[in-house]
Amino acid sequence: MHTDLVAGLVVALDIGGTKIAGALVGGDGRLLVRAQRPTPAREDGETVMRAVEEVLAELSLSPLWAGAQAVGIGSAGPVDAVEGTVSPVNVPGWRGFPLVDRVSRVVGGRPVTLVGDGVAMTAAEHWQGAARGYENALCLVVSTGVGGGLVLGGQVHPGPTGNAGHIGHVSVDLDGDPCACGGRGCVERIASGPHIARRALENGWLPGPDGDTSAAAVAASARAGDPVAVASFERAAQALAAAIAATATLVEIDIAVVGGGVAGAGDILFAPLRRSLATYATLSFVRHLKVTPALTATNAGLLGAAAAAFPHPPHKEASYGVA
Amino acid sequence: MHTDLVAGLVVALDIGGTKIAGALVGGDGRLLVRAQRPTPAREDGETVMRAVEEVLAELSLSPLWAGAQAVGIGSAGPVDAVEGTVSPVNVPGWRGFPLVDRVSRVVGGRPVTLVGDGVAMTAAEHWQGAARGYENALCLVVSTGVGGGLVLGGQVHPGPTGNAGHIGHVSVDLDGDPCACGGRGCVERIASGPHIARRALENGWLPGPDGDTSAAAVAASARAGDPVAVASFERAAQALAAAIAATATLVEIDIAVVGGGVAGAGDILFAPLRRSLATYATLSFVRHLKVTPALTATNAGLLGAAAAAFPHPPHKEASYGVA
Repeated sequence: MHTDLVAGLVVALDIGGTKIAGALVGGDGRLLVRAQRPTPAREDGETVMRAVEEVLAELSLSPLWAGAQAVGIGSAGPVDAVEGTVSPVNVPGWRGFPLVDRVSRVVGGRPVTLVGDGVAMTAAEHWQGAARGYENALCLVVSTGVGGGLVLGGQVHPGPTGNAGHIGHVSVDLDGDPCACGGRGCVERIASGPHIARRALENGWLPGPDGDTSAAAVAASARAGDPVAVASFERAAQALAAAIAATATLVEIDIAVVGGGVAGAGDILFAPLRRSLATYATLSFVRHLKVTPALTATNAGLLGAAAAAFPHPPHKEASYGVA
Repeated sequence: MHTDLVAGLVVALDIGGTKIAGALVGGDGRLLVRAQRPTPAREDGETVMRAVEEVLAELSLSPLWAGAQAVGIGSAGPVDAVEGTVSPVNVPGWRGFPLVDRVSRVVGGRPVTLVGDGVAMTAAEHWQGAARGYENALCLVVSTGVGGGLVLGGQVHPGPTGNAGHIGHVSVDLDGDPCACGGRGCVERIASGPHIARRALENGWLPGPDGDTSAAAVAASARAGDPVAVASFERAAQALAAAIAATATLVEIDIAVVGGGVAGAGDILFAPLRRSLATYATLSFVRHLKVTPALTATNAGLLGAAAAAFPHPPHKEASYGVA
């Protein structure tokens, strides 16, 4: 099995609110061929599906394609791993969309496995990243949305439907603003990239001459000392800290690994995150909790999708021996 | 093993912020002899320990005592099952108190097992109560404090140190009032019995001629239609709902079982709890979540402590066959 896993080539799809990425991934975790499209997130479901099909079509032009044995999909959640459907909060055209069935039609009979993107990223970080060697961990993706996944007792814990660790829609502010999911005060409503930018703009932050109003632009202003930009990241960090502490209090984790585009802000995010964590992670069994940046970076979704596609997901001996 | 378990008599201790209860418990879950003392929660650690010793001394007067094979302790948390120490938030005289060692000294060499009270209650509800037959469940104790425990994949999940499911110190209000634990906006700070009563009094609720200012008295006023009393329970229910939804979002549970003295308020608590849950449990994989009262009631702590004391904790065939 170890040998198959190292040799085995799979198709990986990472489907998010901003982009749809695909790759042919070797069993050793190398991304050998890549393709990508922007997600037409506000379009109808068929238009979104067409972007997925374009990514697959581009990958299929590679001479390696014929050797791919299976397909793994990590999708923005919620997903339903039992039904093979996806309902990403930030892609309203997809509600109960039969993604596994639709992908199966264009990959020539290869088996297709679906997990939530947070679970995928967690599998990647536990396999080759910052959660490697930890028995109990939370991994987060802070990006257009906020997702996550859990490692419990040394194993990735997807939960019965593949959504466990879905930390973006944990409420940390019970009287807070309504969230796109229908809830209130969700972590994502406070800490996602678009909401970091929105809050900065609402509080008077002015973008530079290029007009860039992304969270990355807010981070650049924060690094230059803009207090409104700093405060917007601090608020995001506070929400993340409360939710990370809640997770540690509920399931006892030793490390929280934070990835996704917003984590690219570095100390602008991580310094207030560690400070805030001291406020919320108070009990004796959570005070030792570490927070650290993800190592698999933008490849996490593809690596994790690949891990999900392996006939037998990488287990301890194999995965820790391979990377 | 099944036979041992049914026959096996154990000593169970349930240590909370209000009372210290003990019992001799048969392997079939019957409480054969009981003893109880109020918890001198504001006294020094030795005074609290003396109350535990008095409970054990009273039990030891029973002719059954000699047949008890082991001791199980469910204690208000946090606990440290590895070190055998307890640091109950509501018993400030006990911080890292070596409870397992101190109890061992007076029980004549019987093995002593420690779990958090939330884990104990969960073991009891999974063994003989409302969580029986569920693969994934959260059980809560809402009383002087708020605790809880998890069943994941069909097994009680105590976590590495015996504290998993410690929902009382999950923050659901990141800017909320400071909590005794050092955090902010914790569920316990909003939903415990004493805080239900405090909030009612602060908002102008007047106790009856008997001067009873307990949460039970507030519940009685709520049943009689007092709007301030109703509102205080609604706020508690909102906090519990946010935390239950957070747990379901993080680990995928199918049922939340609510016990403890405050759950005795019945529909005064459960009606707004179910309403609020619809606000916070929004994602497709958590919308089916059920909330139901605990069945093991005030015996949950003792039953769960007994379950922890069994040389082999009740497993599926045994436990579901016995009750």
